[in-house]
Amino acid sequence: MRLITLTTDFGTADWFVGTMKGVIAGIAPQARVIDLTHEVPAGDTRAGAFALAAGCRFFPKGAVHVGVVDPGVGSARPALAVQTADYWFVGPDNGVLSWALAKERIKTVRALENEDYFLQPVSGTFQGRDIFAPVAAHLSRGLAIRKLGPARKDFVRLAWPEPRWPGDRIEGEVVYIDHFGNAITNIDSALLGSLPAAPLEVFLGRKRLCAVAAYYRAVRPGRSVAVPGSSGYLEIAINGASAADRHGLRVGQRVTVRAGRVTGQTAG
Amino acid sequence: MRLITLTTDFGTADWFVGTMKGVIAGIAPQARVIDLTHEVPAGDTRAGAFALAAGCRFFPKGAVHVGVVDPGVGSARPALAVQTADYWFVGPDNGVLSWALAKERIKTVRALENEDYFLQPVSGTFQGRDIFAPVAAHLSRGLAIRKLGPARKDFVRLAWPEPRWPGDRIEGEVVYIDHFGNAITNIDSALLGSLPAAPLEVFLGRKRLCAVAAYYRAVRPGRSVAVPGSSGYLEIAINGASAADRHGLRVGQRVTVRAGRVTGQTAG
Amino acid sequence: MRLITLTTDFGTADWFVGTMKGVIAGIAPQARVIDLTHEVPAGDTRAGAFALAAGCRFFPKGAVHVGVVDPGVGSARPALAVQTADYWFVGPDNGVLSWALAKERIKTVRALENEDYFLQPVSGTFQGRDIFAPVAAHLSRGLAIRKLGPARKDFVRLAWPEPRWPGDRIEGEVVYIDHFGNAITNIDSALLGSLPAAPLEVFLGRKRLCAVAAYYRAVRPGRSVAVPGSSGYLEIAINGASAADRHGLRVGQRVTVRAGRVTGQTAG
Repeated sequence: MRLITLTTDFGTADWFVGTMKGVIAGIAPQARVIDLTHEVPAGDTRAGAFALAAGCRFFPKGAVHVGVVDPGVGSARPALAVQTADYWFVGPDNGVLSWALAKERIKTVRALENEDYFLQPVSGTFQGRDIFAPVAAHLSRGLAIRKLGPARKDFVRLAWPEPRWPGDRIEGEVVYIDHFGNAITNIDSALLGSLPAAPLEVFLGRKRLCAVAAYYRAVRPGRSVAVPGSSGYLEIAINGASAADRHGLRVGQRVTVRAGRVTGQTAG
Repeated sequence: MRLITLTTDFGTADWFVGTMKGVIAGIAPQARVIDLTHEVPAGDTRAGAFALAAGCRFFPKGAVHVGVVDPGVGSARPALAVQTADYWFVGPDNGVLSWALAKERIKTVRALENEDYFLQPVSGTFQGRDIFAPVAAHLSRGLAIRKLGPARKDFVRLAWPEPRWPGDRIEGEVVYIDHFGNAITNIDSALLGSLPAAPLEVFLGRKRLCAVAAYYRAVRPGRSVAVPGSSGYLEIAINGASAADRHGLRVGQRVTVRAGRVTGQTAG
Repeated sequence: MRLITLTTDFGTADWFVGTMKGVIAGIAPQARVIDLTHEVPAGDTRAGAFALAAGCRFFPKGAVHVGVVDPGVGSARPALAVQTADYWFVGPDNGVLSWALAKERIKTVRALENEDYFLQPVSGTFQGRDIFAPVAAHLSRGLAIRKLGPARKDFVRLAWPEPRWPGDRIEGEVVYIDHFGNAITNIDSALLGSLPAAPLEVFLGRKRLCAVAAYYRAVRPGRSVAVPGSSGYLEIAINGASAADRHGLRVGQRVTVRAGRVTGQTAG
């Protein structure tokens, strides 16, 4: 019996997530369900894609990952199940699965068209409950993915903002703000080793924001710092406060990492 | 071993829900517990009743549904366990169970009076942990419901606002606002078929609000629409935004559905 | 297989808690994980310590309690596992475990130094996932605690504000504000019996706040009341509203309980 994870924008204020679990329990009574998060901002497929990509690899092989951030629910956009070397992924074909899939070795992509594996009747507004939960439950019981529908050659991919590193610096951007107000960038922490061996600093345009260090408390309380974050990317934080609030950081904010210079102004 | 669901207004900020699960685990180590929601507005028995009624039927037969929204905790109001054809229900006798029970075939109603099945000592403020969780755990293990206390002939029922349909229109009201700001009405989607076969529209008084369609994205982003919602009722939504915020919709707001007319003013 | 509980300040908006559960599932597939809460205010070790102390004793013996509120993550502060007569506790050595441990009979305290039981590589910012979750998973499978690292003689203890009771009154303070806005004090409800046998009242300085009663609805809706709360301490509440908001109560607010006097002014 495989683990099932859920990543959605359904929130936890209503019965939506609970009923997904009820449907799963009816089909696969032994399945374990783990919430990755249900607080993806409503309709924000990029935030959902990032959460799923950041979290999925910490689960045992064989897990079924369900990602449902689906502003197009009920319209004609296809629904997918994807088998990779390590996992199954289930969700709408709108890109929410794509950043996780970018790191996986894909074995097959299937359109969810076989209604035998849906909850009937399928509502026009809650396919999380009526399609994705039951399909995940059937996969967790070992259903062959080819039973779910025809093979597809490709799927919708969200554009990932690749960082650039023209020699002496890395230019990236903020891709996610977490619960603590830490601003996670698209700069893979491993890239930092490609810069000159000197203390590194983060700049917003020409303004110096903070130094790069190994952990939050490397700076005094209330000071800004950039650290190689737990998701594998450089993140901008404040020891004991929200960097996003303090510095007005938002998804898309451009940042530069380079060896420290005397001329930079200090922001925080 | 039966599934247990929990619907409460306890929130998730404190240890309250966790300790209910701890108590259950001590009595019924194999029981699976699924949260329906813990974010019912504090003391709002009607919202709790709606959530439980909307969610409970998606669980396998035999589930034990616990509903605790209980502003009268510690006072003399009775506590109940109810066996229906499909489920068990446990909670205070203040109506929070009543909208779910209205859709079930009731077999027996029992007052929770046998303290052998309570956690001792019973606190004056947290019967969710001290009475309802342990009783649900015992039921999940197969305890005969008659052991819990004497039979009762009836229970407190919250008034359900029935919609009216005087011929050419349906008059209803908003009964729940969900996480997305969708305003769920008391108009059973099946009723829509009783109206004249023409494009249907929703009015607030004489003001046209939106058309009825099959799913959210049937309208352009930012436009209002009413759809047959996943809970079985017509709901008013905005593609990509909160209908409750935009239109100031609150529980109790009266709405009318009828075939569209040229004279209606358009609001959203 | 032992139960594992989680108490953190990680929130539920991101994938953090989910990945802790994924790591646990990889090591101990049969382990059950129960959330005590993940909404401890960021970095507030005292609130985390109170939640863990209030909740832990409602779990079956043998449970592994993980408490991670850890503003010093990545710095040199030690990490601990503690075995008591009834439970295991795992977390940073910054006091977050200490109020729970104060009520337990301690058998051994170990520093987490054996990296064989960590997730590799250990990040500088998320030891909840990389150290505490895997260690808890191993303990839940029966790993001997001595395998985790060397014995330690002591651990960091947060100061607990003891109430004083100079004869005719008890002087205490607010130690926690809960989801309902109830203000939980440090006054053990059992202490109330030591006061003169007369109706008891709560004062803020010279101003009478409310009477002590057995449950919230002992007063009319909208009125203040102090009740022996479910955590074992006297708590100040309002029937149907937030006492913290109404009276501006915050952690650290001093309160006095004494037999009622005619001269007190009434606040609420």
